Amino acid sequence: MNKIVSLDILTDCFRRLPGIGSKMAARLAIHVLKMPDAKVEEFANALLNAKKKIHNCPICKNLTDGQVCSVCSDVKRDKSVICVVETPTDVMAIDKAKDYKGLFHVLHGVISPMEGIGPDDIYIKELIARLEDGEVKEVILATNPTVEGDTTALYISRLIKPLGVKVSRLAFGIPIGGDLEYTDELTLSMAIENRRDL
Amino acid sequence: MNKIVSLDILTDCFRRLPGIGSKMAARLAIHVLKMPDAKVEEFANALLNAKKKIHNCPICKNLTDGQVCSVCSDVKRDKSVICVVETPTDVMAIDKAKDYKGLFHVLHGVISPMEGIGPDDIYIKELIARLEDGEVKEVILATNPTVEGDTTALYISRLIKPLGVKVSRLAFGIPIGGDLEYTDELTLSMAIENRRDL
Repeated sequence: MNKIVSLDILTDCFRRLPGIGSKMAARLAIHVLKMPDAKVEEFANALLNAKKKIHNCPICKNLTDGQVCSVCSDVKRDKSVICVVETPTDVMAIDKAKDYKGLFHVLHGVISPMEGIGPDDIYIKELIARLEDGEVKEVILATNPTVEGDTTALYISRLIKPLGVKVSRLAFGIPIGGDLEYTDELTLSMAIENRRDL
Repeated sequence: MNKIVSLDILTDCFRRLPGIGSKMAARLAIHVLKMPDAKVEEFANALLNAKKKIHNCPICKNLTDGQVCSVCSDVKRDKSVICVVETPTDVMAIDKAKDYKGLFHVLHGVISPMEGIGPDDIYIKELIARLEDGEVKEVILATNPTVEGDTTALYISRLIKPLGVKVSRLAFGIPIGGDLEYTDELTLSMAIENRRDL
């Protein structure tokens, strides 16, 4: 057999990444060998740097490589609204939509009794603490429309309402550009239940 | 906007790899942040090590991280046959089939006038040199069934035949498990032309 130890190790590293199978991993490893030395070093440094520098923002728990994340430190952001999401990638998705100008709060998970994740295992306490000074007027719960996401939203809304802060939930329904015919039943039921007067 | 410089750099590195789009790249970069420190270091070292250690085998031009590749240094291999392929991944593919027990020779490309690649730009001279001591009795040309692959095979066969070495070409036809109905015309023509007596 044709064995190249250092290539196998690299292939293994790629295969362990999500969504990359063994053929793709082998192809990527071979590609690395064809890259200029400088680019490979850049890649290796990017891995180490990202891992070393990026941490959770002390305020909103979003990822940052600065002291405080760029959203929390942005003076132009509306500090009276906090959008609560499950993961840092949700922040990126909402931020791309460009319509939202408020702050974020990343829970880093959802309440999931099945997986043994309780309210204290995600950043809920930290969210409540941010509401104490009265500057925040509204909390938008943007957890996913799953059982766990809904449960988490409900749990948080019950904690927040007594504080006199407005709580809202993202609208769920038929996606823009979607097709009624191909929309699943649950989404359709949701869209009918939450219909708006015209 | 939510900017994380070191994450963007890492995402960029992933995006430059073949077959990885921007969504996938972002997902991989985020995944790296969740990996344990030791695993990220292992990945970075694997990149640098593979790039530093792997070179072409001085005999067959296949990739190796040893002095001579594991095929050339394997005493159990049949040293009277050389299989000529375009790339190191072709060696891996043929080696996986396990039926072939001879040696390899990697051209690292094909003759392609369109791309300005002539016979001297790939390892053809080095192949001819390996035939000089008379130990090799057969050369199997296993370049791909493309215009360039066929041209290269023809070119090499004309160089080798005068040396009294047997030259053969891989069989091309309908793949095992394939379906006549869905086989392209060229493959079918090839399969009919190269039919075997039963």
